[in-house]
Amino acid sequence: MSAKLKDRVRKIAEKAKAASSVLAQLSVSDKNNALLAIAGAILTHQDAIIKANNKDLAQAKKEKYPAALVDRLALDEKRIIAMAEGLKDTAALRDPIGEILDTTERPNGLLIKKIRVPIGVVAIIFESRPNVTADCIALCLKSGNAVILKGGKEAAYSNDAIFKVCRKALKDTAIPAEAVQMVPSKDRKAVDALLKLDDLVDLVIPRGGEGLIRFVAENSSIPVIKHFKGVCHIYVSDQADLAMAEEVCFNAKVQRPGTCNAMEKMLVHKDVADKFLRSMLHRFTDAGVELRGDAKTRQISKKVKPASKEDWTTEYLDLILTVKIVGSLDEAIGHINTFGSHHSDAIITKSEEEIEKFFKSIDSACVYSNASTRFTDGYEFGFGAEVGISTDKIHARGPMGLEGLTTYKYIVSGNGQIRQ
Amino acid sequence: MSAKLKDRVRKIAEKAKAASSVLAQLSVSDKNNALLAIAGAILTHQDAIIKANNKDLAQAKKEKYPAALVDRLALDEKRIIAMAEGLKDTAALRDPIGEILDTTERPNGLLIKKIRVPIGVVAIIFESRPNVTADCIALCLKSGNAVILKGGKEAAYSNDAIFKVCRKALKDTAIPAEAVQMVPSKDRKAVDALLKLDDLVDLVIPRGGEGLIRFVAENSSIPVIKHFKGVCHIYVSDQADLAMAEEVCFNAKVQRPGTCNAMEKMLVHKDVADKFLRSMLHRFTDAGVELRGDAKTRQISKKVKPASKEDWTTEYLDLILTVKIVGSLDEAIGHINTFGSHHSDAIITKSEEEIEKFFKSIDSACVYSNASTRFTDGYEFGFGAEVGISTDKIHARGPMGLEGLTTYKYIVSGNGQIRQ
Repeated sequence: MSAKLKDRVRKIAEKAKAASSVLAQLSVSDKNNALLAIAGAILTHQDAIIKANNKDLAQAKKEKYPAALVDRLALDEKRIIAMAEGLKDTAALRDPIGEILDTTERPNGLLIKKIRVPIGVVAIIFESRPNVTADCIALCLKSGNAVILKGGKEAAYSNDAIFKVCRKALKDTAIPAEAVQMVPSKDRKAVDALLKLDDLVDLVIPRGGEGLIRFVAENSSIPVIKHFKGVCHIYVSDQADLAMAEEVCFNAKVQRPGTCNAMEKMLVHKDVADKFLRSMLHRFTDAGVELRGDAKTRQISKKVKPASKEDWTTEYLDLILTVKIVGSLDEAIGHINTFGSHHSDAIITKSEEEIEKFFKSIDSACVYSNASTRFTDGYEFGFGAEVGISTDKIHARGPMGLEGLTTYKYIVSGNGQIRQ
Repeated sequence: MSAKLKDRVRKIAEKAKAASSVLAQLSVSDKNNALLAIAGAILTHQDAIIKANNKDLAQAKKEKYPAALVDRLALDEKRIIAMAEGLKDTAALRDPIGEILDTTERPNGLLIKKIRVPIGVVAIIFESRPNVTADCIALCLKSGNAVILKGGKEAAYSNDAIFKVCRKALKDTAIPAEAVQMVPSKDRKAVDALLKLDDLVDLVIPRGGEGLIRFVAENSSIPVIKHFKGVCHIYVSDQADLAMAEEVCFNAKVQRPGTCNAMEKMLVHKDVADKFLRSMLHRFTDAGVELRGDAKTRQISKKVKPASKEDWTTEYLDLILTVKIVGSLDEAIGHINTFGSHHSDAIITKSEEEIEKFFKSIDSACVYSNASTRFTDGYEFGFGAEVGISTDKIHARGPMGLEGLTTYKYIVSGNGQIRQ
C-alpha cells in the first residue's frame, strides 16, 4: 500500500476523531436540528444527486451488472424522499446519550454513576445501495458519533454527491462538518488502511454480503460488529396448531424472501409431517417456492428435490426452502444449533414446556414461539431505527438500534476518598 | 504451523463448545456446588500443586528470571488458600444469568423479552501468575461459560497441576469436566491456532503485558476485550482544597504503585502550583518517588528531572511520577485526552461547574472528582469479582465483573403473528 494513501486515510480519521469530541457534548436539539438540515438539503439538491446516480447507472449498464444490483443502485425521487424521511424519523427518536444506566453509593461514600456516552468514531463499510449513506450518517450523528463512510465503487458518484450535500448542510449547524468523513470509494486498499487505525477508530460495521463481512473481520484490528447470514428455521412440533403453523411458515418464507429474517429451513415433527406437509407444500409450490428436502419429505411429495449437504447451511434469499422431518424436539434443537446461523429461529407448539425448552436451548439472537421470524427487525422490535442485525454475541446481538452505537463510562464523585 | 497442532487445538475448542451448551442450562446451585468442589480439591491437593510449582521455580532460577517474575510465579500455602477462597467468594456472588433486562409488548401482541445468557466459549490467555488459572475458571463457570485457558510457559507445571485438580473435581458435579480446557503452555503457535477458531470461540481475553495484548488483538479473528495500560492522571485545579489534593495524590501514587489504576501523571493549575507543589513534592521524595516534570515544575523544585516526550505516555508501575503545570482546565482536559490511556483520571476541585465539565469531556472508562484513581477495581466498585479492567469501548468498559462475561438474547412469544 502506498504511504501516500495510508497517510490520506489517517488524516481523514484524525479529523473525525477531533470532531467526535465536539459532537459528544452537543444537546439533543443541536443534533436534531443538524439532521433536519441534512434532510432539507437532500430534498433541495435532489437533482444533483440523481445526476450523479445516473453516472453510476450508466457505468453499471456498461459493465452489465445484474438487474438486482442495478435496482439497488438506482435512486429516484421516491427513494430520495425516503432518505430525507429517514433522517427526520431518526431526529424524532429518543436520544440515548446521557442516560444513567446505574447508580451505586459505596460504603466509603463514593457515588458511582454508569452513564451512556457515544462510542467516538464509527466506520461503516457498505456495498451498492447509496441510500445507506444517509441512514448511516443519521444514526451515527444522533448517537453522538463521528462517522467514516466507505461505500462500494459501483455507487461512487452517488455516495460522493450525498456526502457533499450533507457536509455542506452541516456548515450552518452545531455539528462540525468534519464529523462526517468519506474514504474514496474506488480504492479497495483504502479499506485495508482504515482497518488498521485502532488508535483513532473505535468500531467498524460492515454492511453487505458475507464476503465483505469476512474480509473486514479478518483484516481489522478495530472491533467489528458482524451481521452474517440469516439461516432461519421454523420447527413445527407435533403439538402445534397446524393451521397457525401453515400461516406462520407461509409468511416467513414468502412475504419477503430476500431478507435475512426469512425462513430458509422448515423442520417438522414426524407425527404430524404427513398431515401438515400435504397442504403446506402445495401452498408453497403454488406460490412458486422451490422445495428441497430429506428422504422422508420426498416420500410425502414428489415435488421435493433432494437436499444436498450445503442446502442445510445455505441462505437462499430467494423462493427456495429446505424441509426436514425430525423425530423429536431435541433433534430439532440439535439441528438448529449445528446448522443454523444463530440469527432467528421459531417453534410452533401449544406446549408451554416445549416453548421453555426451545427458548433455553436455542443459541440464537432471537428465539420465537408461535410467530414468524420476519419480525427480527429494529422497527418491528420498537427501536425506531436499525443499524443492522448482529449475529455477534459481543457488544450488540440481534436488531441493533441507536443504543448499539453507544458505550458507557463511570463517573465517580468523592469528597477526598483514598484507598486503604 | 503443523496441521497436527491446529487439529489438536480445534478438538479442544470443539469439546469446550459442546460442554458450553450443557453448562448454559445449569441452575445456580449446580454451578455453585461445582465451584465449591474445585475449592475443596485445591486445598486437598495443595501438595501436588506446590510440587509442580517447585518445578517451575527451579526452571525460573536456572534461567535467571527477574525477582519480580519469580515472586509472581511462586505458590505457597497462603496463596493456595487464597485461590480456594476466591472460588468460594465467586460461588457466593449473584448469578447474572437469566436476568430479564427488558420486556416490551408490541401493538401486534408480540411479547419481547431481552434476557441475559452466557457468551458460550471464552478463551483467556495469561502470563506467569498461576493463581489466575483458578480465578478464570471460577468467573467463567459461574457465568455459565466454558473456558479455554492458555498460560505462560514459565508456569506450565503449576497451571497443568491446577487444571488437573479442577477437571478431576468437576467429575462429581453437574458441570461437565470438558467445560474447562487448557491449551499446551509451551507452544506459542497454539495461540495462533486458537485465535483463528471464530466458529467455536466467542471471546478472547488476554491478561498480561502490553506486548501480549497487542499480539492477541492483531492476530485474532475472534472479538478481544483489551486491558491496555493505565496512564492515570490527577488534575489539581486552582479551585481545589489543597490539603485534600495532597492526600489524594499521595495515595494514588504511593499506596500501591504497581497497579494499573495508580497515578502516573499529575497536572497542576499554575495559580496554585507554587503553594501546592512545595509541600507535595517533598512528601513524594520522602516516600522515595522519583520526580520528572516540565520546565515550570523544575523551576519550583530542583529535585525534579526533565521529562522526556515518552514520559507523558509511559505507565511506570513504579515510584516514578511526571508533573506538569497547566494554564487552565481546558489545557488539562486536552492533555489527558491526548496523552492518557482512557483508563482512570481525576480532578480535584471545589467547583461543581469544573467537575461537570471534566466528567463530560474526559474520554476515559472512569472519571473521578475528589477521589483517588486507585478505586478503579471490580471489588471497590461493588462487583464482587473482576475479570479485568477494559480500556475498550466495545462490550465492556472499565472494571469488568461477571456481567462482562454475559450477552443477551431476545425471546419472542406470539400467538400466530405474521408480518404484513
